[in-house]
Amino acid sequence: MISNKMIGLVQNSSVIRAMFEEGKRLASIYGAENVYDFSLGNPSVEPPKAVKNAVIETISEESANLVHGYMNNSGYEDVRRAIAQSINKKFNTSLGEENIIMTVGAAGGLNVILKTLLNPGDEVITFAPFFGEYRNYVSNFDGELVIVSPNTVNFQPNLSEFEKKITAKTKAVIINTPNNPTGVVYSEETITALADILNKKQTELNTSIYLISDEPYRELVYDGIEVPYLTNYYKNTIVGYSYSKSLSLPGERIGYLVIPGEVDDFSDITAAANVATRILGFVNAPSLIQRVVAKCLDSEVDISVYNRNRELLYNSLIDYGYTCVKPEGAFYLFVKALEEDDKAFAAAAKKHNILIVPGSSFGCPGYCRIAYCVDYKTIEGSLSGFKKLAEEYLNK
Amino acid sequence: MISNKMIGLVQNSSVIRAMFEEGKRLASIYGAENVYDFSLGNPSVEPPKAVKNAVIETISEESANLVHGYMNNSGYEDVRRAIAQSINKKFNTSLGEENIIMTVGAAGGLNVILKTLLNPGDEVITFAPFFGEYRNYVSNFDGELVIVSPNTVNFQPNLSEFEKKITAKTKAVIINTPNNPTGVVYSEETITALADILNKKQTELNTSIYLISDEPYRELVYDGIEVPYLTNYYKNTIVGYSYSKSLSLPGERIGYLVIPGEVDDFSDITAAANVATRILGFVNAPSLIQRVVAKCLDSEVDISVYNRNRELLYNSLIDYGYTCVKPEGAFYLFVKALEEDDKAFAAAAKKHNILIVPGSSFGCPGYCRIAYCVDYKTIEGSLSGFKKLAEEYLNK
Repeated sequence: MISNKMIGLVQNSSVIRAMFEEGKRLASIYGAENVYDFSLGNPSVEPPKAVKNAVIETISEESANLVHGYMNNSGYEDVRRAIAQSINKKFNTSLGEENIIMTVGAAGGLNVILKTLLNPGDEVITFAPFFGEYRNYVSNFDGELVIVSPNTVNFQPNLSEFEKKITAKTKAVIINTPNNPTGVVYSEETITALADILNKKQTELNTSIYLISDEPYRELVYDGIEVPYLTNYYKNTIVGYSYSKSLSLPGERIGYLVIPGEVDDFSDITAAANVATRILGFVNAPSLIQRVVAKCLDSEVDISVYNRNRELLYNSLIDYGYTCVKPEGAFYLFVKALEEDDKAFAAAAKKHNILIVPGSSFGCPGYCRIAYCVDYKTIEGSLSGFKKLAEEYLNK
Repeated sequence: MISNKMIGLVQNSSVIRAMFEEGKRLASIYGAENVYDFSLGNPSVEPPKAVKNAVIETISEESANLVHGYMNNSGYEDVRRAIAQSINKKFNTSLGEENIIMTVGAAGGLNVILKTLLNPGDEVITFAPFFGEYRNYVSNFDGELVIVSPNTVNFQPNLSEFEKKITAKTKAVIINTPNNPTGVVYSEETITALADILNKKQTELNTSIYLISDEPYRELVYDGIEVPYLTNYYKNTIVGYSYSKSLSLPGERIGYLVIPGEVDDFSDITAAANVATRILGFVNAPSLIQRVVAKCLDSEVDISVYNRNRELLYNSLIDYGYTCVKPEGAFYLFVKALEEDDKAFAAAAKKHNILIVPGSSFGCPGYCRIAYCVDYKTIEGSLSGFKKLAEEYLNK
């Protein structure tokens, strides 16, 4: 009796979420301390103290009708102005409040911009491995997700295949750097080459191709690496940002879109994104938390905690004989499965109470994602299991 | 360059919102105290003190990773349980946490349930006058909104026309009581007759027809009137609730769906609604505010403030010669325009700095909506304008 589209979606419902539930089940049997759940990107580091202070300050000092009331569907003007100024300072952009639309997380932002842009049958290109929800977001508006196959050497995008897949129907390209699931940061060289291809193709096809940069992991980078700010490299860039990871607020559903003034059809796009925010049922990003993040623009979670996890896990796995590109950002490690079938490999890991997600969920079979945004103890506890798992395969 | 569907939507963008912006413009010219903006349902009554206390308690006493973290896409289990128990106590239902899905307001909830149910071309019936966004919500999933014409005698639904419009393609019926824009509460007699028709048609057509009850105004009723709880009258009822008005939290985007265990295909519907919450980009209802509303289940805004507004406005308008059904709920009054063209009448009102919304926006031309969720002073200030406006027409 439910819609035909939903029947399929329920059946294939997110493997990640299913594992999250499985983790809870195993924990109830073996005890939480004996289950090593690396399935979900749920930040373990606490939000910075500034968040709590900002909540209390906002609720105590600002008018309740302002804090909890309706505002423009695109968000509070003062909040958007503060965010624009903060981005300008960090990335040398020249944004104003008119360039910012507050969204219900990055997921909300992506849906708003895709609703804004897509006609049925329009193509959206993304690079495997990619966040599996892109399939659903594009499908929500009857677009076609076109997937560029993975470059498993270093997980930088495969640009020659990309160029071939751009057609007159290509409306947008979604990239995600630092990347979920690989943790790889696309290099400046990659971004420049990507922008060149897009510019060339726009001219050739006489179309506008929007580069949608999905950036929930921007601040989670290690070893002092820089993540290029894409609006500075390609004119038709739209950024989707989220505070889920930078402030450890994933449940709050707060983020924003950046739509720079120089993108083609800027006025139509911002007007339509405003309307899309309303009619998709978001109405506006949650109000109190909008005001809170505006007071925490210079705060960040303590990423040294994730870095410590990364080092222990990466070094141990390499030591045990696994193959993996060392992640430079986010809190994921994308390890090569020790057999061709990544789902079978994830099932073998589960026998050691280790929960990891098959790469097929990210359009990249043969690998598994390990989300290391967990307690250090969880990583320590899991190591003997990872070691035994490797031995089962490598000593065959 | 934006999508074809959005071009039309932007052009026809909500008259209500446009008037909200117009109100701000007039206020900047004439001073806020000389503009009488009745265009938007933005609650003027402060949230109860319990909300502030609950925010501070939650943020001070609960773990930050719990309060701001991911949870099941359907919401925190303890929050859903507390809400189910509260509904059971009030309406003698037997709901559990499995029957509650936390949503991004009622707008989010309606989109989730329509995504869950609708195949392209499915029909959804509603009764004019109705909240104009239903058009967009149904269109988001390529459904057809079928409108039953208004019964302007008392604004109870026109049930004989309703019965004729039910077909094999009818998947759902949306009703909204207390009603936006009329403030009318559908009587128990109406509800019983409506349920009888639906039961008869379900049998006749051998289909399931879901009654979606959009209830953001449930608690805003006057003169001790009772609003029937629809799950007790019709088996296939799904309730969409919001705290926007009952706790004056419209900006927070917090509400829930009730899916009773006895609805046809209960398991499929709840599983699909969970997935729909995720893939539409909501992911989950905002987390902190979920925990806050669970602590405020017995709190309500002070509706005596709205009642005082209602009495002054209604009595004055009747005195000046206007025609209007006295609203028993919500904070809207639906007045008959003094000329056929409701848009022209609203424009005439604007000359007195009075902003009201033409009934055409609600599928009921010839009337205008006055949202009286404003300061008492605004109503007092507007009265001479309303009087002059009436005189312009009635003394012709």
